Amino acid sequence: MRAVVARRGNLVCEEIPELEPGPGQVLVKTLCCGICGSDLHALHHLDRMVDMGRRANPGLSGGLDAAKDVVFGHEFSAEILDHGPGSEKALKAGTRVVSMPVMMSAAGPTTVGYSNEFPGGYAERMLLTEAMLLPVPNGLSDRQAAMTEPFAVGAHAVAKAAIDEPSAALVVGCGPVGLAVIASLKARGYGPVIAADFSPARRRMAEKMGADVIVDPSKESPHDKWRDVGVLPTGLEQTMARMGGQAVKRAIIFECVGVPGMLQKLIDAAPTGSQIIVAGVCMETDQVEPFMAIAKQIDFRFVLGYTPEEFAATLSDIAEGRIDVAPVITDAVGLEGVAGAFKALGDPETQVKIVVEPGR
Amino acid sequence: MRAVVARRGNLVCEEIPELEPGPGQVLVKTLCCGICGSDLHALHHLDRMVDMGRRANPGLSGGLDAAKDVVFGHEFSAEILDHGPGSEKALKAGTRVVSMPVMMSAAGPTTVGYSNEFPGGYAERMLLTEAMLLPVPNGLSDRQAAMTEPFAVGAHAVAKAAIDEPSAALVVGCGPVGLAVIASLKARGYGPVIAADFSPARRRMAEKMGADVIVDPSKESPHDKWRDVGVLPTGLEQTMARMGGQAVKRAIIFECVGVPGMLQKLIDAAPTGSQIIVAGVCMETDQVEPFMAIAKQIDFRFVLGYTPEEFAATLSDIAEGRIDVAPVITDAVGLEGVAGAFKALGDPETQVKIVVEPGR
Repeated sequence: MRAVVARRGNLVCEEIPELEPGPGQVLVKTLCCGICGSDLHALHHLDRMVDMGRRANPGLSGGLDAAKDVVFGHEFSAEILDHGPGSEKALKAGTRVVSMPVMMSAAGPTTVGYSNEFPGGYAERMLLTEAMLLPVPNGLSDRQAAMTEPFAVGAHAVAKAAIDEPSAALVVGCGPVGLAVIASLKARGYGPVIAADFSPARRRMAEKMGADVIVDPSKESPHDKWRDVGVLPTGLEQTMARMGGQAVKRAIIFECVGVPGMLQKLIDAAPTGSQIIVAGVCMETDQVEPFMAIAKQIDFRFVLGYTPEEFAATLSDIAEGRIDVAPVITDAVGLEGVAGAFKALGDPETQVKIVVEPGR
Repeated sequence: MRAVVARRGNLVCEEIPELEPGPGQVLVKTLCCGICGSDLHALHHLDRMVDMGRRANPGLSGGLDAAKDVVFGHEFSAEILDHGPGSEKALKAGTRVVSMPVMMSAAGPTTVGYSNEFPGGYAERMLLTEAMLLPVPNGLSDRQAAMTEPFAVGAHAVAKAAIDEPSAALVVGCGPVGLAVIASLKARGYGPVIAADFSPARRRMAEKMGADVIVDPSKESPHDKWRDVGVLPTGLEQTMARMGGQAVKRAIIFECVGVPGMLQKLIDAAPTGSQIIVAGVCMETDQVEPFMAIAKQIDFRFVLGYTPEEFAATLSDIAEGRIDVAPVITDAVGLEGVAGAFKALGDPETQVKIVVEPGR
């Protein structure tokens, strides 16, 4: 079958061996697969990602060898072609499905799309775990369904936030992760949400996702907006308000950029008592001043991925119109177009999410 | 009156002007005052503390000028001598009291003991805010009552922790803060609690405070103990357990050391999903690898001080025997002995908490 193979920093479109579904597995036809920022990073730094992944979660990074061929793609919708031996066949061949990109084996879970064994969605066909399949609700397009995975990342970040407290939110960085966070907050009827990004195109996108206040950080600090949304920035003001019997609104900040320096910038600028949800993946070593975080009693939550429940709930949010994913899909390519799409995604003005349709 | 004045890095025992209680203030006789690690730090780095405090909480550090004289001491018990004009006199002269070390003024709160205007407990007399006084419950000694403030710091750290979840705790560093955390955890009937410190004397102290597992980090890593207390360290094990329908115990780690490198050491060694309560005050810039915290989904809570409710609850815990503060008080000195006590506190083998009794 045709696939886009990541090999020594290059993306090569070529024939790879057909797949045979094993016990508990299904063979699927890839309908649509989003290109994730992690894939762009992995193309050149997969070895580092594997090393750090192993350090963080011994065993979890499976048997991935960064020196060997990998077919990326973990944001997909697909159609069932065939069931492996002894499978339940609860969903018949021809059913359109989405799934968490996880293959279960005795050795533990392996990520589809970050595996030497299981090709991801930049291939005509994939093997998936039958037990993890979710049928695509009627009417949802292949492209919309493929957005379940990236938007589940936003749902997870929001699930970790104290949004039930009196609060207001700031989303720093409106790439795919930041936009998914905004969409998830608004799907829950939460507000106000301040959104900040240097890119005009991404600020427009944040507005489409429902952000209430849009900020261009090159013109003004998003932290100048806290009073407008009812958050008292300083500990002194908060103490005085509490002593006066007032409820004090908390600042909830979603860090969706992931570059060195962001954490301390937020510690310095954030209101006292802020909760900072760190969803932006910074791969480099960073510097912080713990005293400043202590003096402001900052609460940091580093988040990654999503739970099966959050994944399923995101599919429902999209299917029932609580989240409109259409605006973030800025282009679609066939397998031959993947290498070019990786380059194009470098420009935030033209692209947010490019999807791959192997059937094109 | 006699006081110990901090002046250009020296502690000078000398006469300072008598105090006049203003509106809403009371004049008190200092009965006992603990020496806090912050005072040791402030003696040489007060200017830096003031600068950082202002950066973190504009206005809150009051008008403190690090170049001018300061009388330290914020962990005190005292006896009411006189009431300022227009005060309520709910507590009569002669009543023994404790109080949060805070003076309220139009300009906002100022910390007693970190002020050029309000001398702290290393003086024969102090001015306190009448509205903040708590009477010392009968029978509690002056020394025990003076421990309300440092133990309230532990109560606050514990109040910020998710101890209601199925979990086990590790306290890293058994100085006054770590010991207060252990005492507060045990006062709430929480366990198991692992305690780690390089000092044999402090490990013995941790045991007296009720720690269930005592670790010498020079012999073994405290993180080797997680399985013994029912915590699965790796994300893989936790995922498998959840898939098997098992409840997964969370690791709650109290960082009570406050030196550079501690945060990343904990990120590297902590179980996946750990909550790290940062109570150790690190004044230097530190380095972290955000990716590791993300991959492990670490939850960091930086904490400082306590609420009025936590302060009052700690006094009750001590008065009602839920917390025995006696073991941590390792020595007592008069005002003339303060300078020597500051030096002695450098040795964890001989001293934990030295109290000052100006009346000696």
